[in-house]
This record gives sequence, structure tokens and C-alpha cells, in this order.
Amino acid sequence: MKGVARRDVRRLAAGALTAPAEDDVVAEEPLEIRAAGETLAITMRTPGADRELALGFLFAEGVIASRDDVGSVSHCGRPGDEGYGNTIDVVPGPGVSLDIDRVSATRRGTLTTSSCGVCGRRSVGDVIERCTPRPVAAGIVGVQTIAAAVESLREKQPNFARTGGIHAAALCDLGGRVLAAYEDIGRHNAIDKAVGALLLAGRIPGGEAALLVVSGRASFEVVQKASAAGVLIIASVSAASSLAIDLARAAGITLCGFVRRGGGTVYSHPERIAPAAG
Amino acid sequence: MKGVARRDVRRLAAGALTAPAEDDVVAEEPLEIRAAGETLAITMRTPGADRELALGFLFAEGVIASRDDVGSVSHCGRPGDEGYGNTIDVVPGPGVSLDIDRVSATRRGTLTTSSCGVCGRRSVGDVIERCTPRPVAAGIVGVQTIAAAVESLREKQPNFARTGGIHAAALCDLGGRVLAAYEDIGRHNAIDKAVGALLLAGRIPGGEAALLVVSGRASFEVVQKASAAGVLIIASVSAASSLAIDLARAAGITLCGFVRRGGGTVYSHPERIAPAAG
Repeated sequence: MKGVARRDVRRLAAGALTAPAEDDVVAEEPLEIRAAGETLAITMRTPGADRELALGFLFAEGVIASRDDVGSVSHCGRPGDEGYGNTIDVVPGPGVSLDIDRVSATRRGTLTTSSCGVCGRRSVGDVIERCTPRPVAAGIVGVQTIAAAVESLREKQPNFARTGGIHAAALCDLGGRVLAAYEDIGRHNAIDKAVGALLLAGRIPGGEAALLVVSGRASFEVVQKASAAGVLIIASVSAASSLAIDLARAAGITLCGFVRRGGGTVYSHPERIAPAAG
Repeated sequence: MKGVARRDVRRLAAGALTAPAEDDVVAEEPLEIRAAGETLAITMRTPGADRELALGFLFAEGVIASRDDVGSVSHCGRPGDEGYGNTIDVVPGPGVSLDIDRVSATRRGTLTTSSCGVCGRRSVGDVIERCTPRPVAAGIVGVQTIAAAVESLREKQPNFARTGGIHAAALCDLGGRVLAAYEDIGRHNAIDKAVGALLLAGRIPGGEAALLVVSGRASFEVVQKASAAGVLIIASVSAASSLAIDLARAAGITLCGFVRRGGGTVYSHPERIAPAAG
């Protein structure tokens, strides 16, 4: 399985170490993302769905707007070369000029230790202020749909069961049907892969991917990526940060946290959620 | 409490939404880290212990080597200014010239979506190959000490209990006594804060901080930061990635995952761990 590696380990049990045995661990390797030959990003990711990851990332950054902007996406070099598979290049479509300075302007020249996605206080304010809030139609999604979508995500996490150390993200329609679901050691990569897959399929942009389910916490950048993809509702099985809540409110996104066993916390725009029938 | 913000929320319960009520959420805000006036990094962090965070980050990057390299660390601007508290400047000590190009060379000009810390395949190989493995003395820490240190971390997580959405890191001595412990929305920030606090206290570098306990997964960058701080043993309550294991093996670090209720998995250098007495 591509996202999983095997290593010899020992267990601590009853105050002692067991004999060595092989165990599954989540694979982590760097991916260098290039657009038209120029390096725009290097991210630590779980190998697999690299094309989707690259496209989802460039979409979130505003470098590409749809599948039509993309000519080809492929790994650089040849199979068998050292490090083959860890550099990917997105070639623009005929006559398309990618605005890679969007990344330069907002992100290059800085670095982030905690998954960041913004460039300082002023930009955070800018991001929130420049939001075009999407209209909130009342009661368009049921309480049960959100809970069911979160349960679906658990089923889409085969590697989590094997390694216990991987995040997952799923994009669903308003009925809770899963359109795309991916796992990755990085929360944001899992989202980028799901968005990239629907972009490749020509289904993003468009209103279809209405619900984003994430296995980890909802941070500012999670809401930012969801907003770019046209998502209306975010359901996280974990907590939401203050800035994530503020951005979701400004962007007209319904943000739910701690969605587990029928319960949950709604941080913004609860009017979109319809109570369970009868 | 500084790391916690309050927001109005509603609960999902029994298929319906409760009335609005205030809830604690983890605070998330950007911090711009400057050295000698130049911006080196912007990270999303939980406010608090910003001086420790800035110093721990610069130490991990190799920009400062000890407290002697630091003249002052303080927030830019004046209290009351918009955004005050979200930019911090590290001024070098008298006669000290900080090598900020270390950050430029290895990290600026790129960006990371998943908490990265490396610059591409070649650098990952470099980091692993250039490790000076620390010698492994057999049986220097007991199984119970590791378990007890992880339990101590839980007690040091007041905000986790309130918000359910924050990471924690603790640096302990070989006896499992906690020397420094911090919480942050970012795993790496919590480590930087703990390292920065001991650096400020003049206790890093030095062999005292032998054990790092982290609440989240052990990724490549966690091991990298631990290695820079002279840590011998890492105990995570969660999983370890393939690359984290490879780096720990090369660096002579004992890496333990899933340390919970007396159990755990040892991924590297188990010979350092002594079984429980009698």
C-alpha cells in the first residue's frame, strides 16, 4: 500500500520490551511542487495522489482556477532515478499563463513552522475582510446528514486503521454522498488532494462539493481552503480555532466541530442546519 | 487565560440545535518572527510565550546557538497599536552577528503547507546523512519513567481540557522531571517554546533535556527539532512517520510512539530503555 511503510519495532508491554517485529507506519516524504518548471512549494506528504495534491494546492493559492488552466501534471525525471516521484511539475494549458507571482507575493519569502497559509497579521485581516460571504439558505442540510458524512469518512481511512497516524478529508454533496476522499500525514494535504481530484474531474469550481469533512482540527487554513473550493459546511471531528471561527463567520460557512456520535458544536451559521425530522 | 478565546456556539444534541452559549476555543493568531529587524518566519500560533517561541525557532534553525547570542527579544510597536503582540524581534547580543542566511538558504524562497521543515529530497537526505549520531548508553532510562513523563504532560495541558484542540510538548530530564512544558495549536510551536524557555534559562545547550514528550504525532520535523536540542528519547502519545523513524535511527535517538497506559511502540534504539525492576 503506497501510503504505508514497514519498519521493525518493539513493543513496551508489562514493563518490558518485546522481540522485534515488523509494523505498519505512515509514509512521509517531501514533494516539491513546480508550476511551469518553477518551484513553488515543498511539502512533507504521504506519497500517492500527487497530481491531485499539486492541483489542489495551486487552486487554493489562486494560481489555477479550473482544469482548463492545466496542460499536464507529471513527476519530473524518470522512474528509477534517485528521488523519482518526489518532484511534480504542473504545465499550463495552451495559451494559459499561470500567475505564479500570486504565491510569490503572498507566501514566498517567508516560511511556516506550524501549517500556516497566511502572511502575517495584515493578511489575516485582509483574508477575512475580502471574503465575499456566501448566502446562507436556512435549513438546507439535516443534522443526520452531517453525522453520516463524518461516519463515511471513517470508512474511507484504511491507512488510519493500519498506522493510527494519518489524517483524512472528504468532500461530499449536500446529501452527504462522498465525492472525493483522501488520506495524508498532513491535514491540509488531504484537503488539497480531494479538491484537486474534483478539479481534475471538472467538478470544481461548481456548487457540488458543499460539505467538507476533516479528521483533524479546523484551523484558519482549513477554512481558507474550504472557502476557495466553494464549500458551505465544514464538519471536523476535532476542535476549531478562534481564527477559523472568525473566518467561517465572515465567509458565510457553517463550521461544526467535535462531530461524534450524533453530537457536535456549531461555531457559525447554524441556520443552515435543519433539525432531525420527527 | 491567554491561549483561550471565547465564542458563541450551539450544540448539536438529539437531532436539534441548542440555544447559543459561550464556549472556550483555542486561540490562533499569526506571529511574525524577526531577527535583527528582518522577517524570517510567520507562523500561526497560540499567543503566549512568544519570546520562547521565537528563540526556540531560531535555535532549531541554527540561527542562534545559545542565550549568549541574544541581546533582547521583544514585541514590535506599542501596546494598544493594532496587531500589537503579533510581531517579535530578536536583537543579537553585543558583537554577535546572526547568520540569518541559514534560514534564507534552507527555507526561504519556498513555502510549506503541511508543517515541513525541510527543503526537498536532497535536504532530507542531507539531514539524515549529516547527523552525528549520539552514543547510545544501554539501559539509561526505565520503562516507567517514559510512561510517567507522558502522564505528567497530560497534567500540563490545562487548555486541552478546556478546548480539546491544543498540542503540548514537555522537555524532561532523565528522571522524567518536567523542565519546561508548553501548549500551542501547532505541535512544532509547543516544542519551540519548551526549547526556547530552557535556552533563555541557559540550560540548553547541555545534556539536561534528555526526554521530549509530545501530544501529537512524531513527524520528521519533530525529530529534527529534538535532535537540535540534544534530546535522547522522544515519547509521543501518537504515531511516528517513516521519515521520523529513519532520522531517529541515524541520529541515535530512541523514538517511542503510542505511549499510553504503560504500553507503547519503540521505533529506534530500544537498547536505551531498561525494563521495569522486579
